[in-house]
Amino acid sequence: MRLRNKPWAEEMITNHPEVIVPNPEDFKGNWQVVFGNNNPIHIEVGTGKGQFVTGMALQNPDINYIGIELYDSVIVCALEKVLEAKSPANLRLLKVNGADLNKFFNKNDVARVYLNFSDPWPKTRHAKRRLTHGDFLKLYESILVDNGEIHFKTDNRGLFEFSLISISEYGMLLKYVSLDLHANMPEDNVMTEYEQKFSAKGQPIYRLESQFITKL
Amino acid sequence: MRLRNKPWAEEMITNHPEVIVPNPEDFKGNWQVVFGNNNPIHIEVGTGKGQFVTGMALQNPDINYIGIELYDSVIVCALEKVLEAKSPANLRLLKVNGADLNKFFNKNDVARVYLNFSDPWPKTRHAKRRLTHGDFLKLYESILVDNGEIHFKTDNRGLFEFSLISISEYGMLLKYVSLDLHANMPEDNVMTEYEQKFSAKGQPIYRLESQFITKL
Repeated sequence: MRLRNKPWAEEMITNHPEVIVPNPEDFKGNWQVVFGNNNPIHIEVGTGKGQFVTGMALQNPDINYIGIELYDSVIVCALEKVLEAKSPANLRLLKVNGADLNKFFNKNDVARVYLNFSDPWPKTRHAKRRLTHGDFLKLYESILVDNGEIHFKTDNRGLFEFSLISISEYGMLLKYVSLDLHANMPEDNVMTEYEQKFSAKGQPIYRLESQFITKL
Repeated sequence: MRLRNKPWAEEMITNHPEVIVPNPEDFKGNWQVVFGNNNPIHIEVGTGKGQFVTGMALQNPDINYIGIELYDSVIVCALEKVLEAKSPANLRLLKVNGADLNKFFNKNDVARVYLNFSDPWPKTRHAKRRLTHGDFLKLYESILVDNGEIHFKTDNRGLFEFSLISISEYGMLLKYVSLDLHANMPEDNVMTEYEQKFSAKGQPIYRLESQFITKL
């Protein structure tokens, strides 16, 4: 995503602690305090402009959603989207690095991880930065409940191929896969901004659901 | 594949025992007698018109190939292809049912199974007939060496999606996957008749390599 410099972003972020949680490390292992209930927590790593996580929060009021985005200039777009939706009680944003998830979540804090149209990092020497690399899977496992799930969609063929191999090598179970999501669009599919724009071109969107297997 | 009635097929098959092995059950556990060496054996289940298995045999003289095809009217086409190629010493055909593989092969007889453009059996009630169904994977495992492999390609999206799930549920390792084989055509790719015809249309060919994991 092209990042524009937005000097007003920092102030806007600070002014909305009810959406973008300040000091999220304070709630590690204790997120029910933030949401006021014990509903399962689903996080999206790389929330971008926030259409997906906001749509999901509105669609599923009994699940708590946390959108994670590092960049000021991007998370303010997500913030605007959340404010437009009147700040659903089951939705928060974190302005943190996805690589630091275990600073903010304990094992069992999270029930599901969403990855949508993540940066493909096409060069082999950047493979470790891909959000489905084994190192990231290990990180997700360290904050997920037993048998927790990863739901991933992308239009990038190379990244999807890499991800199928990566989850297999990690020993995860592939529960669902679509190699052309929009050919048989699930009724409850919430589109990202990018997906909406991209799908008009008629190229396939890939999607998978994968589950960690508890080692006995 | 459309099956034409070919009354001369049976006679032609009987006349070429040097290619289409008569009484293959006699060689169960003993295929080195047929080939005159101990080279690894790769089989193709559903050989069709034989272009793939013949091309592979010519390309890889140190591997023994067995093409398996049930129908008289189809296997005669494969036979003609083999005869045109001057009957490579490392190639045989079996006119048997793929569901009966364990009547003709013992555990460790086979090093690799190829499945190419297998019948998709799109109806859910026919899922058990798909050559990547768990029941077939179990059958392949029962004749393969430890860590033996399945190499599969198809243009059928539904069958490929089913197969990815099936091998994951079986606990196999996904070693390689391409969601558009011809976009980065491997130099050693041997095309089937169907693949050659189909690829001209510009729709993707899917391919995977998967390995059985020895249970300790």
